[in-house]
Amino acid sequence: MHKDYTLALIQCAMQPDPQANREKARDLVLEAAKRGADLVCLPELFATPYFCKREDGEYFDLAEEIPGPSLEIMADAARQAKVVLAVPLFERRGPGLYHNTAVLLGPDGRTLGQYRKMHIPEDPGFHEKFYFTPGDQGFPVFDTPLGRVGLLICWDQWFPEAARIAALQGAELLLYPTAIGRLLGESEEEGEVQVDSWMTVQRGHAVANGLFLAAANRIGLEEPDGPGLAVHFFGNSFVAGPRGEVLSRASAEREEILLTRIEPGRVDATRRAWPFLRDRRIESYFPLLERYGR
Amino acid sequence: MHKDYTLALIQCAMQPDPQANREKARDLVLEAAKRGADLVCLPELFATPYFCKREDGEYFDLAEEIPGPSLEIMADAARQAKVVLAVPLFERRGPGLYHNTAVLLGPDGRTLGQYRKMHIPEDPGFHEKFYFTPGDQGFPVFDTPLGRVGLLICWDQWFPEAARIAALQGAELLLYPTAIGRLLGESEEEGEVQVDSWMTVQRGHAVANGLFLAAANRIGLEEPDGPGLAVHFFGNSFVAGPRGEVLSRASAEREEILLTRIEPGRVDATRRAWPFLRDRRIESYFPLLERYGR
Repeated sequence: MHKDYTLALIQCAMQPDPQANREKARDLVLEAAKRGADLVCLPELFATPYFCKREDGEYFDLAEEIPGPSLEIMADAARQAKVVLAVPLFERRGPGLYHNTAVLLGPDGRTLGQYRKMHIPEDPGFHEKFYFTPGDQGFPVFDTPLGRVGLLICWDQWFPEAARIAALQGAELLLYPTAIGRLLGESEEEGEVQVDSWMTVQRGHAVANGLFLAAANRIGLEEPDGPGLAVHFFGNSFVAGPRGEVLSRASAEREEILLTRIEPGRVDATRRAWPFLRDRRIESYFPLLERYGR
Repeated sequence: MHKDYTLALIQCAMQPDPQANREKARDLVLEAAKRGADLVCLPELFATPYFCKREDGEYFDLAEEIPGPSLEIMADAARQAKVVLAVPLFERRGPGLYHNTAVLLGPDGRTLGQYRKMHIPEDPGFHEKFYFTPGDQGFPVFDTPLGRVGLLICWDQWFPEAARIAALQGAELLLYPTAIGRLLGESEEEGEVQVDSWMTVQRGHAVANGLFLAAANRIGLEEPDGPGLAVHFFGNSFVAGPRGEVLSRASAEREEILLTRIEPGRVDATRRAWPFLRDRRIESYFPLLERYGR
């Protein structure tokens, strides 16, 4: 059984210059480590503005190969800070093949593995299907010195299947780097409903799977530099425990390093009391592999 | 698209005499209809105390064949009240084959279909694996004059798979007849955590599937009539809307008819904004059919 450790979620705003975002993220990672973090998670696409606000082929220039400039600086940061570090970025996999990817680095700066976003949204203000090829490597989990971690990205948050598969592979903690907000013009009330639904569905995954779950979101209003919709990212990065309880929650507007103590021993303890994994009817779940029953 | 209608959840306590429970339930169904209900859901095993508090072969005598005395009186009630009615009972299917079953009746009193509980718990105070053969007919949905309804039972609440499969078969509303409580001796604080986890995981299903969801629980302290644990059923019957919002919620201790307006048109409207069913990666969900990845 793994020891308790400290998770840090980085909640921040991004600016147009990727190198400035990288340097800021590096500073935040080092600061998180100073405050005791063992594992640090950056928000989705940490090196760039959320360019998916509109469809523009020029934005593919923001993508990086792996390894590339973001990983170079973040691997240094992980090594210097001696932390496990989740680095979500816009990946150029090959000509015309781009992914929304997260790389997990070990405390020695080496890559433990990577995840390519499986569930890709496409909504007004969130034109991800234009930019991102859907992942083709399933839902991997990663062994770290702190235990087994599942790494998913944003829209995956809404899919119980992704959380369950990671749990069944032994993940004790699910990390969700995120870029979610309300469209400028949507009411505050609507924004609050969105935050509540977003937290609720993820807290539900924590309950159903008896594990820890954390979402690191960005903040700030981002205007498109051209036709498109402005998005007001709503922060509220949070960590849930294995009974769905909110262990920590960041503000809606402020840059924050959200520190939370993770007790991996609670995963087995919780599942002993609520043994959902014991009682799954796996021989009856085939309809989950179908699109719709009609 | 179906019209709006009124759902009534019956929250009540049960007594030792089955016939007394049936007559009380009948009166509550008629009263619910007087108050405008079109669809009524009774709590799990409505005709009996929660006998699973301990294992005793004598309790199999409480089971009924289908049709049997409970269905006879409840079919009359459905017809008289002109409501769709969910009737959860202890079913004797054959010698040595007993199920935790729910029958759905139409407003003419005829049977629309039945569901045999698929996920069977076994915990201190909840010895269901002793009494109930696991269902072998999957997760059916039922066409009613009010729309397509998914009928699941209690422990199913904790399994995203069950909710998803019902949603994929076209259910607009999930009904969960329930008997959940805390063990006598568990603290009130622990009880509150349980209520919150229980509501959260179900509200999460409502969000993930963009549908209405309702749980009808019993209330009251039930002592075992022999060695065994006492269970304090915690009420809190509730209805969630397709964004996971709590539309109505009953008390922890009082008998109630909880009336809630259901707007089936919101299911499609919600899914247009949050098109999770569109983006499921069905070719990548095979691990859901496995027990565990190790």
